[in-house]
Amino acid sequence: MADVVPKPHTPAQGVAAQTQDDLTPMALALHAASEAAARGEVPVGAVVTDAAGAILAIAGNRTEADCDASAHAELLALRAAAAARGSPRLENCDLWVTLEPCPMCATAAALFRVRRVLFGAYDPKGGGVEHGPRIFAATLNLQRPEVVGGLREREAAALLRDFFGKRR
Amino acid sequence: MADVVPKPHTPAQGVAAQTQDDLTPMALALHAASEAAARGEVPVGAVVTDAAGAILAIAGNRTEADCDASAHAELLALRAAAAARGSPRLENCDLWVTLEPCPMCATAAALFRVRRVLFGAYDPKGGGVEHGPRIFAATLNLQRPEVVGGLREREAAALLRDFFGKRR
Repeated sequence: MADVVPKPHTPAQGVAAQTQDDLTPMALALHAASEAAARGEVPVGAVVTDAAGAILAIAGNRTEADCDASAHAELLALRAAAAARGSPRLENCDLWVTLEPCPMCATAAALFRVRRVLFGAYDPKGGGVEHGPRIFAATLNLQRPEVVGGLREREAAALLRDFFGKRR
Repeated sequence: MADVVPKPHTPAQGVAAQTQDDLTPMALALHAASEAAARGEVPVGAVVTDAAGAILAIAGNRTEADCDASAHAELLALRAAAAARGSPRLENCDLWVTLEPCPMCATAAALFRVRRVLFGAYDPKGGGVEHGPRIFAATLNLQRPEVVGGLREREAAALLRDFFGKRR
């Protein structure tokens, strides 16, 4: 349960003005997760911000919609942010995601050279940052981002619990 | 150095008829790696075949061309193969790649549920199958593909050595 003061940020284009709190990166990631659930996708959302806190990309899971098992929110957001910047690297950018990234997405965050990975719920079964292969500790030649876990953890976990509860 | 009898296969569409040996999946992956090098990309190539050995997708690295640090040959080939099949899963398919997959691509292979991962050169620094986080051994809830390493290893390694040699 991290106690992090959010960095200053700029609202995403096209996001309806709501309260200031609804426009923090993690709030936007939670919103993208809810939208994914509404589409029948596992509710995980991700946001990439630049060094000044401006939103570069927002994405939710799209594995079913895109016929792509790798279409995790994080990978989609990282790819979109890099396209927006016109560079395959995202130095000084932060990845905000509602769930601890899996090993694929954790490695991708390092390959894109993001500065920080900030996530919501911990994932003991599928996570690859604090669980399983612990990518940033295990991999020799990757630049390791700073990690913050537990941001709005209860909301992020509740979205996943509701989603999988309904499926049983 | 594995001793594997290649499965029967169907030549990829658009590939000029050459000798039978030039159309094995690993030969096609090596060719895609050479083409990547010619574009200034790290020379790694990948092919996905279905259960009958037919080619579903061929890709080379495109991280620079696509402004996408995740555009590794394996991820591109897996995604293209899934799109071709119209399913986010690639059960009974095989991933052939000239270099030991990194942790991102190894995890992606498991997420796509490929049957086998067959690679060329070993990668002690960046690999995630036999080195580093050893994804298939470390991750609890992923389906583990069968792994074959060392197929046409010398050719695959020579491509990488030549590429990085020229850059120095």
